[in-house]
Amino acid sequence: MNTTFGENLRTTVFGQSHAEAIGCTIEGLPAGEAIDLAELAAFTARRAPGGRLATQRKEPDIPEVLCGLLDGVTCGAPLTAIIRNTNQRSQDYRAIADLPRPSHADLPAQVRYQGHQDVRGGGAFSGRLTAPITIAGGIALQILARRGIRIAAHLLSVGDAEDRPLNPMGEDEEALKSRLTRELPVLTDEADKAMGETIAAARKAGDSVGAVVECIIEGMPAGLGGPLFEGFDGKLAFGLMGIPGVKGVEFGTGFACARMKGSENNDPWRVSDLPPGAAPVTNRAGGIAGGITTAAPVIFRIAMKPTPSIALAQETISLERGENAELGVRGRHDPCIAVRAVPVAEAVAALAALDLLLDSPAVLPNELPRAWASCALEKNAK
Amino acid sequence: MNTTFGENLRTTVFGQSHAEAIGCTIEGLPAGEAIDLAELAAFTARRAPGGRLATQRKEPDIPEVLCGLLDGVTCGAPLTAIIRNTNQRSQDYRAIADLPRPSHADLPAQVRYQGHQDVRGGGAFSGRLTAPITIAGGIALQILARRGIRIAAHLLSVGDAEDRPLNPMGEDEEALKSRLTRELPVLTDEADKAMGETIAAARKAGDSVGAVVECIIEGMPAGLGGPLFEGFDGKLAFGLMGIPGVKGVEFGTGFACARMKGSENNDPWRVSDLPPGAAPVTNRAGGIAGGITTAAPVIFRIAMKPTPSIALAQETISLERGENAELGVRGRHDPCIAVRAVPVAEAVAALAALDLLLDSPAVLPNELPRAWASCALEKNAK
Amino acid sequence: MNTTFGENLRTTVFGQSHAEAIGCTIEGLPAGEAIDLAELAAFTARRAPGGRLATQRKEPDIPEVLCGLLDGVTCGAPLTAIIRNTNQRSQDYRAIADLPRPSHADLPAQVRYQGHQDVRGGGAFSGRLTAPITIAGGIALQILARRGIRIAAHLLSVGDAEDRPLNPMGEDEEALKSRLTRELPVLTDEADKAMGETIAAARKAGDSVGAVVECIIEGMPAGLGGPLFEGFDGKLAFGLMGIPGVKGVEFGTGFACARMKGSENNDPWRVSDLPPGAAPVTNRAGGIAGGITTAAPVIFRIAMKPTPSIALAQETISLERGENAELGVRGRHDPCIAVRAVPVAEAVAALAALDLLLDSPAVLPNELPRAWASCALEKNAK
Amino acid sequence: MNTTFGENLRTTVFGQSHAEAIGCTIEGLPAGEAIDLAELAAFTARRAPGGRLATQRKEPDIPEVLCGLLDGVTCGAPLTAIIRNTNQRSQDYRAIADLPRPSHADLPAQVRYQGHQDVRGGGAFSGRLTAPITIAGGIALQILARRGIRIAAHLLSVGDAEDRPLNPMGEDEEALKSRLTRELPVLTDEADKAMGETIAAARKAGDSVGAVVECIIEGMPAGLGGPLFEGFDGKLAFGLMGIPGVKGVEFGTGFACARMKGSENNDPWRVSDLPPGAAPVTNRAGGIAGGITTAAPVIFRIAMKPTPSIALAQETISLERGENAELGVRGRHDPCIAVRAVPVAEAVAALAALDLLLDSPAVLPNELPRAWASCALEKNAK
Repeated sequence: MNTTFGENLRTTVFGQSHAEAIGCTIEGLPAGEAIDLAELAAFTARRAPGGRLATQRKEPDIPEVLCGLLDGVTCGAPLTAIIRNTNQRSQDYRAIADLPRPSHADLPAQVRYQGHQDVRGGGAFSGRLTAPITIAGGIALQILARRGIRIAAHLLSVGDAEDRPLNPMGEDEEALKSRLTRELPVLTDEADKAMGETIAAARKAGDSVGAVVECIIEGMPAGLGGPLFEGFDGKLAFGLMGIPGVKGVEFGTGFACARMKGSENNDPWRVSDLPPGAAPVTNRAGGIAGGITTAAPVIFRIAMKPTPSIALAQETISLERGENAELGVRGRHDPCIAVRAVPVAEAVAALAALDLLLDSPAVLPNELPRAWASCALEKNAK
Repeated sequence: MNTTFGENLRTTVFGQSHAEAIGCTIEGLPAGEAIDLAELAAFTARRAPGGRLATQRKEPDIPEVLCGLLDGVTCGAPLTAIIRNTNQRSQDYRAIADLPRPSHADLPAQVRYQGHQDVRGGGAFSGRLTAPITIAGGIALQILARRGIRIAAHLLSVGDAEDRPLNPMGEDEEALKSRLTRELPVLTDEADKAMGETIAAARKAGDSVGAVVECIIEGMPAGLGGPLFEGFDGKLAFGLMGIPGVKGVEFGTGFACARMKGSENNDPWRVSDLPPGAAPVTNRAGGIAGGITTAAPVIFRIAMKPTPSIALAQETISLERGENAELGVRGRHDPCIAVRAVPVAEAVAALAALDLLLDSPAVLPNELPRAWASCALEKNAK
Repeated sequence: MNTTFGENLRTTVFGQSHAEAIGCTIEGLPAGEAIDLAELAAFTARRAPGGRLATQRKEPDIPEVLCGLLDGVTCGAPLTAIIRNTNQRSQDYRAIADLPRPSHADLPAQVRYQGHQDVRGGGAFSGRLTAPITIAGGIALQILARRGIRIAAHLLSVGDAEDRPLNPMGEDEEALKSRLTRELPVLTDEADKAMGETIAAARKAGDSVGAVVECIIEGMPAGLGGPLFEGFDGKLAFGLMGIPGVKGVEFGTGFACARMKGSENNDPWRVSDLPPGAAPVTNRAGGIAGGITTAAPVIFRIAMKPTPSIALAQETISLERGENAELGVRGRHDPCIAVRAVPVAEAVAALAALDLLLDSPAVLPNELPRAWASCALEKNAK
Repeated sequence: MNTTFGENLRTTVFGQSHAEAIGCTIEGLPAGEAIDLAELAAFTARRAPGGRLATQRKEPDIPEVLCGLLDGVTCGAPLTAIIRNTNQRSQDYRAIADLPRPSHADLPAQVRYQGHQDVRGGGAFSGRLTAPITIAGGIALQILARRGIRIAAHLLSVGDAEDRPLNPMGEDEEALKSRLTRELPVLTDEADKAMGETIAAARKAGDSVGAVVECIIEGMPAGLGGPLFEGFDGKLAFGLMGIPGVKGVEFGTGFACARMKGSENNDPWRVSDLPPGAAPVTNRAGGIAGGITTAAPVIFRIAMKPTPSIALAQETISLERGENAELGVRGRHDPCIAVRAVPVAEAVAALAALDLLLDSPAVLPNELPRAWASCALEKNAK
């Protein structure tokens, strides 16, 4: 069972919520990439808990890079970064194990691992495991940005409260900047207010609420990906489904295109001075046709379920007594996991995009890159 | 770039629409499985063209198994099956190459392969490549059925015409049988009629129409899969996005759960005499929690875009002249690709389900299967 | 269980000795490579049976390419080629199954597949499965040759008869050409004669004889591969051990270096005008240091066991009767499998070398290859 | 470029000699396995430096397990263990970078990573990276031992000094125990003395010496592995070539069989009461036939080159000045790296053996393991 994401850039996430540490190992990172650790910490902080609308837990979540860097620059060896788990409340987790939480992995994991799984704080199934994903993704984002590739996500809807959708042709830079200045990662003040109220109401009711996250990848070159199981959309969908709580993924017009005509959903081509010399007039495809990038922005949306851990009483069973029971989940939980999942979606998109860029060339140059060597000497001639 | 689906059961699809043949190689098939080739042909025939609502092309599509079977039983070696391409119209495909079809892979593939791609009939991007997927999936279906696992899909909607949704707890056996007796793979006569009219109208207008396919997997044991990138949902989403035309995938309540409260979307547990001794009272999760099967049916839906090849005039460019042009796609095209995609969705689900069953045990038995050996002698003692 | 070789260029071999066909599927082939099928057939013919010193079986072994080519040029889609099995003698293979041949896979396979394996002619364990490997490797050789990479192997020893070793610095072009003109693939007439006599004597005695095959890869750029499990030597060793009958692999001085001093085995560096600006004065490392190519020729040797199928009586058991038995293998067998394994070693080396060339760049260029696009239009401007 | 070993049990090694830490992540470990950390530390200590015949560096090398265990038992999540690097001498490594050491990866890595590689103490190419391999392998050894699988290696030769070879049929338990009580891991006092003198002499001369390590795997069930690229021998060879300094791998009679007749090298079968009801009378195959285990012990040998870092003056180049130079490697180096590689070979063998045991079953049981579930409840009924 593979626990790794990516073919060329491979990220392995490890750790349990209450283990010594959580972290990730990234294989295949290109060498020579300067990584700004302050910028990385700022990115990962976007998913850290705290704030009026999130859990009250304190997790500084400062990534410690153990290897893979030399003087802050990637050296071509695997990069491993960890976060120490400092804020675990000691408790008799065996008790927790007795009452599996509805819509959680508790019981399925109990079956899968025959009771050996780590149940403390959700163990390997905790949303906390998305922290290492943001570390890996944050590193990929810096490498991509250097090459003109920008990735940004926002909350498109929380319950019935909606933000305006992104322009599928891009050019939302200002609005996307503004999302970092609001309480919630949204494009408009109206959405910030409405979603804030929706989330506060859910918490007050001891309940939780679902949401949709929308993400855009701008600047990908045309001509990356391939048919069938080579598609960039498949790679993204796989990675995004790995985010706990994601129940759906769609690209471009997505499920809406199921109600459309071809004449309404097709993207006409028109001559362009940008590569590939043609550009789609519209971007209903979400930047991917036949699994291959079109040079238009890649647009996707993910559906995130409402947090399953709620204070309201729910039916469950007692594994020890083998009988029905009732459970109201106490403790500190996000009423809307999607809020903190926004940077996680960006991270997964970045890992998939860099993985795609690192793929074998579809056409092998006739001249092999002997240049490597000259570089090597040049570099030292200085 | 991986062109293969699956970790333990690996299916590689090969061929272009107008090459000598298309086909697939399946690695990791368990030995000793009798494969009924007539039953297989009947299954693959469900996606074959023909019929009032599909393209007029004739493709007998009889799979020829080249290896992997001994007296009709899998022998543990890779199984390769091919379909000869017999019905290609000879034509100057260079001409086709000049006007890339909107929302097709034509132009992205041109960039990806620098003009070396096979453009004849869509080449490796043709929907025809789903035929080998149904061969592989049809074989997996027989192996799964023997173990009480049933997979069935139907058209949930075509444009605005809708079928009734499947019961997420299963028990739709009769309705699902009936779908094979109708013109379209649906559960009700009303849907058959309404969707038929929608598709016929689209064809008449020289246009096409999108659709949603819904699929159920019944009988999967609880406790298969894992967190993050080990999830059964991620495996399924990856495979399903590989079907040409799929723009979205959702599980259980899917995108609808984004508007729901946790108290509305959670699946309470109740004691059950079936493994794992507990069963969800509802199945909003679609049979998967934390990436692991819950023993409830796995339910997913895919959004399929309207066929991009339409007779109506559309904008495109001439690659040769480097200027804007107009294109009306002539020739024989399905006005609704989803109709033939129904068995393809079942096939991908079967490949993912068998791949999951063949995964390493989460817990290694203390007694190693020395039994193998005794079997070996028994078998020959007869 | 993976049946595929390679990470970026992935070759899957399928078929059993007496199935309808054997063949291979190659994923990841670069597009735009002209493949000379006559040259390919000439290469695969080098392993075909026949000749005084090989088995008398007739296997034309003409590869049929089913897909992956357009007008003889790779199109970027997987390439599948097959060879029909025409020369199977019908027989009651159940009888064969009763007496497992010593040092063959017969009994281990019986245990592995619980009697379901195809035993006809050795099934999936037959040396015949090396034919598809030579098809894949022969294609890779043409792609490599175009880029100045040459691969050639010879018989270094057969029993006690020896050929002269290759010059580890290369420059054996003439001698290597001559090997194709002799009865056996060797560098000298003396070796041709001595080895011929050794093989003839073994056949006359109803016995067989082992051999060592030596191979050189010239023209690989420096700086490909990596430490630990990224090494080119590990990739080669894995592939070479996949050739039936190989019991050992060594690089450069190989096992001999175990008796040497560091001062005797080290390769000093000296300034060179060739990349990387330095060259090893000697090549005891066999062209690989720390898993990475040094620009010196890659040299390896494989030990091939004597054909296990011999006419002389040997001890075995009867699976049916569960008692000891005697077996003298009748039928047509090579007294020295290494003779036909020479091109197979070249094929595996070619697949490994091209796989390495197709790997992700260790350093990602700052300018992404937007050039793709311009090519695309250029190509069509003609 | 994959830096991971294994298909089902995947070990990723990370770190550089002078990074914050080195370590490994193991995916696919079965849950429920108690890991004795003291026993693990004792095993990894066998490769730690120190002692008269090894380098004088001090590396406590106590593994810290960050995750994957719950109360000392594997929980089914990836296990990550690290070793902090404490003993790095600060130095201007740029200077080191100027004079690449002969037969080291210095220059090839400089080309590969264009000067971005970590050159401090050999970076990712340091033999120190074998420490994490022994951590992973040590864990696998405990899981295997519980199932009757024992793995042990010894120094077969150092220069011209030889130990007695292992009995290919096993039954060397006492002698193998004794190797842990000697200064060197050998079976006889004579070898201990002779090899000790050989190594001491090499060190005195400012030189180094090569060696052969022989390893045995006892207790593997028959019937694991497969043909071509599925072979257990290929899996082992790949892993063993990943150990720095290994230049050759052979199984059973290995290169010696190249001079033998089939009648001398074949292993006759005889009826046995042990599975698979038959056993080879001899074990020239080294426990593997056709890539599949025979139930006889798996025997392999690896050739390890003499330490390339020697005090004697050698030719190299100055990268900065681009001219020839002379280098005598100062500092603390093992005169015979093979001494510390003995437990590393055992570790790689253990990882390969457990990976093989965790493979998909060749034959899928008709009854799916619903038992999982009952276990789950049982366990909690206590």
